[in-house]
Amino acid sequence: MNRFALNQATTKGWPLPELARECAAAGVAGAGLWREDVQAYGPAATAALMRDCGVAVTSLCRGGFFERPDWWDDNRRALDEAATVGAPVLVLVCGGLPPGSRDLDGARGRVADALGALAPYALERGVRLAVEPLHPMFCSDRCVVSSLRQALDLAAPHPSAAVGVVVDTYHVWWDDEVWTQIERAGRADRIACFQVADWVTPLPAGVLLGRGLPGAGCVDLRRFREAVDAAGYAGPVEVEVFDAALWARPGRSVLHEAIAAYRTHVA
Amino acid sequence: MNRFALNQATTKGWPLPELARECAAAGVAGAGLWREDVQAYGPAATAALMRDCGVAVTSLCRGGFFERPDWWDDNRRALDEAATVGAPVLVLVCGGLPPGSRDLDGARGRVADALGALAPYALERGVRLAVEPLHPMFCSDRCVVSSLRQALDLAAPHPSAAVGVVVDTYHVWWDDEVWTQIERAGRADRIACFQVADWVTPLPAGVLLGRGLPGAGCVDLRRFREAVDAAGYAGPVEVEVFDAALWARPGRSVLHEAIAAYRTHVA
Repeated sequence: MNRFALNQATTKGWPLPELARECAAAGVAGAGLWREDVQAYGPAATAALMRDCGVAVTSLCRGGFFERPDWWDDNRRALDEAATVGAPVLVLVCGGLPPGSRDLDGARGRVADALGALAPYALERGVRLAVEPLHPMFCSDRCVVSSLRQALDLAAPHPSAAVGVVVDTYHVWWDDEVWTQIERAGRADRIACFQVADWVTPLPAGVLLGRGLPGAGCVDLRRFREAVDAAGYAGPVEVEVFDAALWARPGRSVLHEAIAAYRTHVA
Repeated sequence: MNRFALNQATTKGWPLPELARECAAAGVAGAGLWREDVQAYGPAATAALMRDCGVAVTSLCRGGFFERPDWWDDNRRALDEAATVGAPVLVLVCGGLPPGSRDLDGARGRVADALGALAPYALERGVRLAVEPLHPMFCSDRCVVSSLRQALDLAAPHPSAAVGVVVDTYHVWWDDEVWTQIERAGRADRIACFQVADWVTPLPAGVLLGRGLPGAGCVDLRRFREAVDAAGYAGPVEVEVFDAALWARPGRSVLHEAIAAYRTHVA
């Protein structure tokens, strides 16, 4: 249980003070937060709340979307917010194709450029940028980084303290290269964040909210946890599940189910 | 236009005799057919119909689904049907995980074994098995072969006359390795079938029927056609689009729109 962390997306809509208090009461040592909630509560107030409850902020979601005109200001703000709340990691969802574009190589090049531009500021703020490969079904509209290999290639030019990667089981479970790439990520000290969710079909319309708690689907989640461990990762394991059915339930109940699912299928 | 072929899935529900006559009237030289329609019309009758209309059968969809108990008999039957209708290629959708399984490596191993078992009979019948990598969003329930590299690795142990691959833009467009793998496929004479459909978001529930005619989405389809050409492929270009909105329209209208889309965005 010392590694379990609740990602706030799993209990979307649950007020932050309740989340922090219930995590503390359940012995949960960490939580990954989302910017919209942190902004609404106030970054400094969030930092104080989490500190008072003794719950570490394991990551802040999310920067990225480098195809948008305001990407530069927005990502610097995101790094500021991460520093304020004490998140060691800013998760990057790197963005899709610009409207009307078919230039996937160009979009991928833009991600590389943006990382180069942001890395010095990330070091300055003491926050690690974490490139998250998203499942290829999100390639056009959310993230042109589609594999762990690509994410590691993007991170490679930068100090590992500036740029790491996210290993999220939901996004990479299908990839037969993922085991060798996890080893590579460990050797290069690039695993900034490890998130678990299970793959469930049929996918819902829009495909964003079809994830499952550990054990609900077909991913060998324990194998992933053992693989990142073997690669030298000893950080938090965030349970991050986007599922509208979970959001309709009381946060406390979802938290306790997530903990039980983690114990049975991940730990 | 000498390479355009209509895949029957684009005009699902259109009676086969109409499809054959309208293809002939439009100067379409080939059509990819589906087993359910061929079985309903009769394989020998289908062969006669297509021959009389002067429309070649470019492929038969589909064999595969090697996780099902009846895979052996069913795939041999599929090869028989392909031989009867004169299809040079049997497209394989290799199947997903068995119910309740989390053993992805095991499922992939089963595909390799099945190809080995079927290859001699494919040679005997003069029909090429074509491994189709499907988009990773279908990995659990339709096809554990998720990239062109994987498909080529699976084909490699067998004579190229027995086992080739399908390059379908809808399934592989996101893959940054696809260009080098298309070159590899050409060098090894493995491109058995080339299919085009465009990637459109948001995806519908179930994600099967969300494809677009060429030009409707974000895939650089002409680059793919040029890449397979440069790799030495000179065969048909099947427009294969699964889209419930197209199925609701008269087949003839869809055929003519597919031809126009092919001319503008692929040829």
